[in-house]
Amino acid sequence: MAEHVITRDAPTHRTWDVDHEPVVRIQPGDVVTAETEDFAGGQITRDSTAADLPNLDFNLIYPLAGPIYVEGAEPGDAVAIEFLDFELPEWGWACIIPGFGLLPPGEFTEPYIKFFDLTAGDEMDFAPGVRIPIEPFCGTTGVPGAGMHDVRIPPPHAGGGNIDCRHLTKGTTLYLPVAAPGVLVSLGDAHAAQGDGKVAIFGVKCAMRTTMRLTVERGMNLRAPALRRPPGPLTPRVDGGGWFATTGVEPDLMEASRSAVRAMIDHLVAQRGLSREDAYMLCSLAGDLKVTEVVDAPNWMVGCFMPDAVFT
Amino acid sequence: MAEHVITRDAPTHRTWDVDHEPVVRIQPGDVVTAETEDFAGGQITRDSTAADLPNLDFNLIYPLAGPIYVEGAEPGDAVAIEFLDFELPEWGWACIIPGFGLLPPGEFTEPYIKFFDLTAGDEMDFAPGVRIPIEPFCGTTGVPGAGMHDVRIPPPHAGGGNIDCRHLTKGTTLYLPVAAPGVLVSLGDAHAAQGDGKVAIFGVKCAMRTTMRLTVERGMNLRAPALRRPPGPLTPRVDGGGWFATTGVEPDLMEASRSAVRAMIDHLVAQRGLSREDAYMLCSLAGDLKVTEVVDAPNWMVGCFMPDAVFT
Repeated sequence: MAEHVITRDAPTHRTWDVDHEPVVRIQPGDVVTAETEDFAGGQITRDSTAADLPNLDFNLIYPLAGPIYVEGAEPGDAVAIEFLDFELPEWGWACIIPGFGLLPPGEFTEPYIKFFDLTAGDEMDFAPGVRIPIEPFCGTTGVPGAGMHDVRIPPPHAGGGNIDCRHLTKGTTLYLPVAAPGVLVSLGDAHAAQGDGKVAIFGVKCAMRTTMRLTVERGMNLRAPALRRPPGPLTPRVDGGGWFATTGVEPDLMEASRSAVRAMIDHLVAQRGLSREDAYMLCSLAGDLKVTEVVDAPNWMVGCFMPDAVFT
Repeated sequence: MAEHVITRDAPTHRTWDVDHEPVVRIQPGDVVTAETEDFAGGQITRDSTAADLPNLDFNLIYPLAGPIYVEGAEPGDAVAIEFLDFELPEWGWACIIPGFGLLPPGEFTEPYIKFFDLTAGDEMDFAPGVRIPIEPFCGTTGVPGAGMHDVRIPPPHAGGGNIDCRHLTKGTTLYLPVAAPGVLVSLGDAHAAQGDGKVAIFGVKCAMRTTMRLTVERGMNLRAPALRRPPGPLTPRVDGGGWFATTGVEPDLMEASRSAVRAMIDHLVAQRGLSREDAYMLCSLAGDLKVTEVVDAPNWMVGCFMPDAVFT
């Protein structure tokens, strides 16, 4: 078993493409450590303000490390990516940009940004009386689909990519369907914390140093990502407290999600004294969307679950 | 604080209606124990077979206990229903009826039924090598919305009702918006187990004896149900094991849910040796749907999470 390092100086790429030149070729079972910049490719510094957000150059977002060529991976197989370790930088950031996220732009009309100190233990301060567990993962880990050329990074696809799944923390294995020989794994857009749904579109964005073991599962024939979590709770860091959940009951799951989040924002403002912006951001960073009922036609129910443990 | 009992002999009702005559009038803080028949109102016995399912008389489904009139509850308030205890019967049942549930009728063309012994501890046998924790709750707890008359029970609404939320187990408090004076709480359709989503439309249906404390929260101004869970994990009975999750990545949350469930069925058949019918039913009884990402336009991701702990 060999170990490989992809440093921050290595070439990055910003598209899915089966013809991308690999930055490293590995054998199944090898371990790779990859350094990645944040989602914005370093455009946001600790001196940035909300006024800088509309000026983000979207041509520079999603610089991915990779691709990693895994010898012997063939279509029909899955690449299994076991996340072994994450090394965090000193700080991260999250924001609200009107027009992005679950709620329409008319409900949040001003850009908003917040910085987080990631050096003070395993939690980060969010607001007075609110602390969030640090639970890092890569928002983007993926492989190009069959025949993909010059496809932009953001929308997730069958080969994974920008799936923003909070459960891909240390110890978890992500399975992705191999569409091209060598599979061509890339990663980036790390988050220091995020809830299920990522409703305000931003987790806590940060650079990251990710260590993972890549193997090949023969003939798994996946049509989309799958994952295996190690023994233990899915939300171990907040399970000591209770939960408050709001719901949306609507004839559309997207509208039900919106209603649940709006109700949680109202609750956090009224009962926890947060600003509306902080409430929406907290839903994105620590709230979990669950489809509690999807069959009692014509109305479905989605719940937004907020752990009490984030309130100190 | 008074205690009240609504026995199985009390009148039941099968519609939401603000003019229903209460079966009991209580003060806020009182405790009520309500006996309910199962969803089908006793039409299914232990001698029933799958052939009986198409003959279910849908005029007899959802016999609800209540309504309970809570003195002093006014529009704008919420009724808080704390579930104190559930007493289970000896058996329950679940089924697949083509045309109902998340997957289209063409994918499951035959009715299927399964019975469960609820007397052998805190788990029930599902299939060889598969046991499910018993975690009872009422699939239906609700109040009529403003002006509701003669509205059939099944679709959930802003006043709750058939919300089928697995998290309403012992110790949880459900908050429902009061639309009519006295609020008129009704309940029924108990489940001995169910996953988030209830994808095959059936939990483990059973009769139940539910004990709950009803109070009034002034001016909560809810637009839909909310709930508070006591300290502790949301899935305490299965957290000792790991999880396997399949996903659906689609431009529609409903289709993403379907894709995730189809992938889990394929996995359970291939890796756990279940029949397709048992796999679908297990998704409904023990799998949890999570909206892991709902903002990376145009594709959203839904995960179907199955706990390893159900496999013995």
